[in-house]
Amino acid sequence: MALLLKGAPVATALTESIKADVEKLKKNGVVPLLAILRVGERNDDISYERGAMKRAASAGIEVRNVILPADVDNDTFLAALEELNKDPLVHGILMFRPLPVQLDEEKARKMLAPEKDVDGCTDGSLAGVFANSPVGFPPCTARAAMELLKYYDIDPKGKRVAVIGRSLVIGRPVAMMLMHANATVTICHTRTPDVPSITREADIVIAASGQMESVGADYLREGQVVIDVGIGWNEQKQKLCGDVCFEEAEPLAAAITPVPGGVGSVTTAVLCRQVTDAAMRK
Amino acid sequence: MALLLKGAPVATALTESIKADVEKLKKNGVVPLLAILRVGERNDDISYERGAMKRAASAGIEVRNVILPADVDNDTFLAALEELNKDPLVHGILMFRPLPVQLDEEKARKMLAPEKDVDGCTDGSLAGVFANSPVGFPPCTARAAMELLKYYDIDPKGKRVAVIGRSLVIGRPVAMMLMHANATVTICHTRTPDVPSITREADIVIAASGQMESVGADYLREGQVVIDVGIGWNEQKQKLCGDVCFEEAEPLAAAITPVPGGVGSVTTAVLCRQVTDAAMRK
Repeated sequence: MALLLKGAPVATALTESIKADVEKLKKNGVVPLLAILRVGERNDDISYERGAMKRAASAGIEVRNVILPADVDNDTFLAALEELNKDPLVHGILMFRPLPVQLDEEKARKMLAPEKDVDGCTDGSLAGVFANSPVGFPPCTARAAMELLKYYDIDPKGKRVAVIGRSLVIGRPVAMMLMHANATVTICHTRTPDVPSITREADIVIAASGQMESVGADYLREGQVVIDVGIGWNEQKQKLCGDVCFEEAEPLAAAITPVPGGVGSVTTAVLCRQVTDAAMRK
Repeated sequence: MALLLKGAPVATALTESIKADVEKLKKNGVVPLLAILRVGERNDDISYERGAMKRAASAGIEVRNVILPADVDNDTFLAALEELNKDPLVHGILMFRPLPVQLDEEKARKMLAPEKDVDGCTDGSLAGVFANSPVGFPPCTARAAMELLKYYDIDPKGKRVAVIGRSLVIGRPVAMMLMHANATVTICHTRTPDVPSITREADIVIAASGQMESVGADYLREGQVVIDVGIGWNEQKQKLCGDVCFEEAEPLAAAITPVPGGVGSVTTAVLCRQVTDAAMRK
């Protein structure tokens, strides 16, 4: 019977620590403010925005919603971003991506001030996560996985870790963060000939390939910690599933995150943590 | 008998390709210019500078030497850097580090224009090597290791690679570059409990720990490619040695770099390649 690494208590604990810091900031006249910049009405964005607003409210963080029509022109969009960049009251900016095709996403990413980049998409944030320096912020999901390990007292130091997936939002940054925490990390990806032979050797497996239920029993051995970063709708099973086949993995694992209710449920708390960190750094 | 992966022919081939590009640039009125910014008279710096100038001359690249006294004040130093940053005739800047203690190295690193950062030390370059995007340049030694593999037709794709060392000048960037080339990379470091068990599993071993002759026969198995990035003076043997114990590794390896005459002898050619790339990007 694996220990179930639920995200909710991690998010709650994080929120408590944020609240304490927000109180201190407020005593100094600073109210952490998250700006959410959304273009159009994509369901995923709206749903995440709602979660982030709820979490922010419970942590005492203010939110400013900047919502632009799906057909907004590039100049108007960049002007809105620049206004948030320049506004000293705004500590963090969450810019939903991908942006509609008429907008210059690369330019927007380059414009966004790294010190406000609480979702870790700028070059400054990437350099920070690579160099382990306090420039920008790591992507929320990568840090959520780290916060989850920390909460459950799973120290990566000296451990073998296999990360499946090399994306810039999760695989690569979480690999670097685990290495900074003194784990020995192997990054597997689509061109890795025999992923199971590598994941079976690991103490901790981070599943972030984006391939639903692709990590089955053959990828695992007994006693591992399995962190599932994936989430998607399984049409056949009519439920949300992760990248790990939970039914196969749970009997083997020492500890495993559920999907939903695992890593994903920690991300908005991390977002709020990073907004507060941004306000504290200033 | 291992294939000896000598650096000299790699440097020569690189220089030929640079010369061809420099000719094209000159036809358009552009002469690639490398500025070397050196503070003080450290032997290592002077020796590398001499090598770089010789290589640049043979490739048709101009060099501007900016030499400041060891006790230069911070304002004077930063002004010299800013002048090179702003000068449109300067395509690449090599700033020797570490800087003397009275100088603000972190500020200098942040000031240096990523598009002129041909030695890969800025946040822009770090983000570029992490994201595999054309921002800045990778550190020369990391790219030298990659150029060496390329020259000898050793494709990292689908291979297991163990990198020993996680420094920002070689371990981490070369790990990323190998991953971008579709290798499956494990980064070992001082907190890895059993490095030999990992390196023995690899097809390619990159030794970059900075620990002289620390990679012995127990780290290796037959048929591997061994790339030695280290170099240092062995007092006992009265000769230059790398991180690999060559006498033990050579009989096992399929291919191995000598020290000296391996990776190190490719770095100035890479520096010139990156100066030319910088001129071509403009």
